[in-house]
Amino acid sequence: MSSQTITISSPADFHVHLRQGSLSRLVTPHVRRGGFNLAYVMPNLTPPITTTDSALRYKQELQAIDPNVEYLMTLYLSLELTPDEVRKAHAAGIVGVKSYPKGVTTNSEGGIESFEVYYPVFEAMQEVGMVLNLHGEVPSDASANIHVINAESIFLPHLVRLHAKFPQLRIVLEHATTRAAVETVKSLGPTVACTITAHHLALTVDDWAGQSYHYCKPVAKFPDDRKALQDIVREGHPRFFLGSDSAPHPAHNKSFATPSQGCAAGLYTSPILLPLTAHLLESFGALDKLEGFVSRFGRRFYEREIDSASGNSVVLRKISQIVEKSFVAEDADVVPFWAGKELGWSIWYQCS
Amino acid sequence: MSSQTITISSPADFHVHLRQGSLSRLVTPHVRRGGFNLAYVMPNLTPPITTTDSALRYKQELQAIDPNVEYLMTLYLSLELTPDEVRKAHAAGIVGVKSYPKGVTTNSEGGIESFEVYYPVFEAMQEVGMVLNLHGEVPSDASANIHVINAESIFLPHLVRLHAKFPQLRIVLEHATTRAAVETVKSLGPTVACTITAHHLALTVDDWAGQSYHYCKPVAKFPDDRKALQDIVREGHPRFFLGSDSAPHPAHNKSFATPSQGCAAGLYTSPILLPLTAHLLESFGALDKLEGFVSRFGRRFYEREIDSASGNSVVLRKISQIVEKSFVAEDADVVPFWAGKELGWSIWYQCS
Repeated sequence: MSSQTITISSPADFHVHLRQGSLSRLVTPHVRRGGFNLAYVMPNLTPPITTTDSALRYKQELQAIDPNVEYLMTLYLSLELTPDEVRKAHAAGIVGVKSYPKGVTTNSEGGIESFEVYYPVFEAMQEVGMVLNLHGEVPSDASANIHVINAESIFLPHLVRLHAKFPQLRIVLEHATTRAAVETVKSLGPTVACTITAHHLALTVDDWAGQSYHYCKPVAKFPDDRKALQDIVREGHPRFFLGSDSAPHPAHNKSFATPSQGCAAGLYTSPILLPLTAHLLESFGALDKLEGFVSRFGRRFYEREIDSASGNSVVLRKISQIVEKSFVAEDADVVPFWAGKELGWSIWYQCS
Repeated sequence: MSSQTITISSPADFHVHLRQGSLSRLVTPHVRRGGFNLAYVMPNLTPPITTTDSALRYKQELQAIDPNVEYLMTLYLSLELTPDEVRKAHAAGIVGVKSYPKGVTTNSEGGIESFEVYYPVFEAMQEVGMVLNLHGEVPSDASANIHVINAESIFLPHLVRLHAKFPQLRIVLEHATTRAAVETVKSLGPTVACTITAHHLALTVDDWAGQSYHYCKPVAKFPDDRKALQDIVREGHPRFFLGSDSAPHPAHNKSFATPSQGCAAGLYTSPILLPLTAHLLESFGALDKLEGFVSRFGRRFYEREIDSASGNSVVLRKISQIVEKSFVAEDADVVPFWAGKELGWSIWYQCS
């Protein structure tokens, strides 16, 4: 008797950090190891990817590391970006533009504070059909009682206004963590979608309290928020799909704090992404929505649909595995999310 | 020209963890180093202090380490505790009984789940005049959306009910962290008081996100909650007073996480407590309330008032100091809160 298997066509991760240098050489091949052959690559490098030319150079670097993955590029929204550059980027195959709030996440010191100054850019993006990726948090501000827990909810009116102003602009609210975000995106039109990470389907605030290995931005919120994320996945809503936000950091930056320096925000899920996602969806009764969540929904929104004949496919088998304790790079090691824990599913084989 | 000075009569810390063994030998003398000569000592040892005899033995151990501090003892509430034992404890000079919710904090596995079973004990405490110290959090429960952020607010109806049932029982809500707690305690009668730690006057959730050196239970909440704590101190409300909840852990347990083990909850403020409290109260315009907050209000509630002739006094001078990076015990070192940072006040001298 054979074990239970699931076949997924062309899994696509619509939000992933592939870094630079030796860390990039370690983690880029893990996209495919985790079952994926499309990576929507975040631009928050040092310096950030703000131009067509730098995005294409970065894409070439990634292709040199692993040519078997399709890399979709997005530019870092900044005052450098002009409507002309948008048209140039689009012509060069660049898919999106990513907006970071100032200082909220890794290398976001040059991010946005107000959107109006970017309206000409968004106008051009809407015209040519580029996607706006929003890191949907406002910066913490104690005087206004804004903090890591409500930073996303307070951002949502910005999303609503942007969509009203640019109804044809495709917008993705990235790595949603709250019931408020799910409800807002659901209430908006077909041009607004939302990525959900695997880890936010698993974690709540209690998990990262005192445990830096579960600390990421946006921080995981309350059990009721997690339930809203799980529910929308179980519903099979086509505008909610996987973007792992897999964000590797050297292990010492995750494990070790000093009184003057806390730990890095970011969880590393790439190397186990498809088995992990299957494991989690199964845990809340949504395994039948796996292919939609990890492939079809995102591909449809991004207009990257692949017919089952031409795409690759990945076969998962219900055989448990223990997640690796770490992956070793030339000058650092990276500890994956769920390290040392059991996943109920493994990749059996991939065909492309 | 001399620097500015403040003289405080008989500072009293109404909530402190003095631990056991070598850690106790390190930290017990720090009560006085931090400017205090009364310590209300928490009973969450291994095994917990549940009887009069064990409390008296523990008190003797502490006195052997530093005889210059007055130690007030409180028993760990458990099913072992009988009304007779309460009367015995009171006769032996034990001041209170501490209730821990199951599993919420260090060594609280034997804590309470429901209060009704303890009503006979509370009745006896009310009769003899012992104080009930409440760790005011309910255990996290994802199915009920209870988590570290709302654990205190959800506990508060228990406090209200206990006070209604035992209106003459003196109750202290320990280490309040929320506006809801402040408002609830304020609304109750003169037998209900509240301790506030120094660190909760400084921290919010953003400070412990990814920074285990700022991680304690109850976790620091939102800026608006911190403001409520600061406001009630600035108001000089006599039922709100200092309980440091100073809780030392070996540095490696604070600094280092593994994927399967997070960092210990607890901040160590004893050795800098009076200068730290002065520094913080000055930062929000409440320096004139310092003596009430760190001495008179708590002493009055606990009926431990000292006239200024017989008490000791501590003179603070407005000279800045850098907080020690660590304190070394026989087999571990302990890093204080605010390590390496500047405090605007120093202890000039103490006279007893």
